[in-house]
Amino acid sequence: MKRLVLIRHGESEWNKLNVFTGWTDVTLSEKGIEEARKGGRQLKEQGFDFKMAYTSYLTRAIKTLWLVLEEMDLMYIPEVKSWRLNEKHYGELQGLNKLETAQKYGDEQVLLWRRSFDVPPQPLAEQDPRNPRSDKRYHDVEPGLLPLTESLKDVIERMLPYWESDIKPSLAEKGEILVAAHGNSLRALVMHLKNMSEEEILAFNIPTAVPYVFEFDDELGLHKDYFIGDPDEIKKLMDAVANQGKAAK
Amino acid sequence: MKRLVLIRHGESEWNKLNVFTGWTDVTLSEKGIEEARKGGRQLKEQGFDFKMAYTSYLTRAIKTLWLVLEEMDLMYIPEVKSWRLNEKHYGELQGLNKLETAQKYGDEQVLLWRRSFDVPPQPLAEQDPRNPRSDKRYHDVEPGLLPLTESLKDVIERMLPYWESDIKPSLAEKGEILVAAHGNSLRALVMHLKNMSEEEILAFNIPTAVPYVFEFDDELGLHKDYFIGDPDEIKKLMDAVANQGKAAK
Repeated sequence: MKRLVLIRHGESEWNKLNVFTGWTDVTLSEKGIEEARKGGRQLKEQGFDFKMAYTSYLTRAIKTLWLVLEEMDLMYIPEVKSWRLNEKHYGELQGLNKLETAQKYGDEQVLLWRRSFDVPPQPLAEQDPRNPRSDKRYHDVEPGLLPLTESLKDVIERMLPYWESDIKPSLAEKGEILVAAHGNSLRALVMHLKNMSEEEILAFNIPTAVPYVFEFDDELGLHKDYFIGDPDEIKKLMDAVANQGKAAK
Repeated sequence: MKRLVLIRHGESEWNKLNVFTGWTDVTLSEKGIEEARKGGRQLKEQGFDFKMAYTSYLTRAIKTLWLVLEEMDLMYIPEVKSWRLNEKHYGELQGLNKLETAQKYGDEQVLLWRRSFDVPPQPLAEQDPRNPRSDKRYHDVEPGLLPLTESLKDVIERMLPYWESDIKPSLAEKGEILVAAHGNSLRALVMHLKNMSEEEILAFNIPTAVPYVFEFDDELGLHKDYFIGDPDEIKKLMDAVANQGKAAK
């Protein structure tokens, strides 16, 4: 049996403010740090023994990974970071409060931007200081690949090649792999692994810092998938993510 | 100009107890955490912008690296871990108090074990639970390479090939590299870089968590080397390291 575990980063400073974050590099809140540590303890209790870990270029995911590895006494395993595991780029919405955006444009438009399969938010202007091409962190990436906005479809298109080229072969070889990333980059992977429809993935929310386990047979056929933890608590966390963009709340 | 920075991990829980640590995997003390953060802040203030980082398989060095990268907003850079950057293996001395060892065997024998060039301490027995061949962290290493004790000469022999094969080419290509490691693995590298004699390296002590900068020309000829920080304070830290094994203290 081979096992892949996905973990979405704990609460960030901007999640707390309910602001569209995307590629903005904010760190974990105190609560987010505790969430990540708890995820690590749960994985340790369940006997996971990762041989390798993947994460994004964004601090909140890397920090989540580091806290998990520290709790698991696995700090020595190889870690690989890739921009392809970054959160969805939210274009012009990055930095706007989700509630204000909903009041201004209506719940429906915001839900469309947040959760439609192929409608990206307004792109950043080329000369916007938030353009990733101006950020030294992405200097090793071919500029033409770097987005100014993204739909979930765009995220899948830049994430899946990395799954195929790096994570999947590493899972086949090493057998137990951890991926610490973001709501939408993980959703892209879940959609692929579970062969979900566009409607299904739109309705699927990944709670923060709850380890999400995928068990495969030796040919990497998916056997089963489950979250670690109390089912009621996980349900509440998933609902909380789904409701973030609603003005009425 | 190309720059290599070496940083020895901050104080560990066992440094505090003055116990021979070697490959024992202890974590940083609160003081050690603060030391590492300070090193990171100093490097940031001096405008360092590392493109890549190397560390050992031991928690105290990895944690030092992570704290430095966090302070520098450089968590996204590639990190590579290698057992070849581990501390010197102290054989049977691992877990013994330095002061007690000095009282029992005399200052001279302890200084010889700690600081002689080619006299290793008594090796661990093959079946000792501390044998690295029984530790899953080293399962990717060819068992014949893993030591049961080491002299500084042995450390050089396992560390320098890694410098030549990995760190040096990466310095040549990327220009600014950080290595977070241990007193003796860094000493082995310093001896090589500064072309020191056995006597010179025996008398040379690397203070904890003080960034040690090496500047090279584009052909990797060494131009100069210096510690970052207040010279008086650094002198005190170096003397403290030198005096750790003396019974008279």
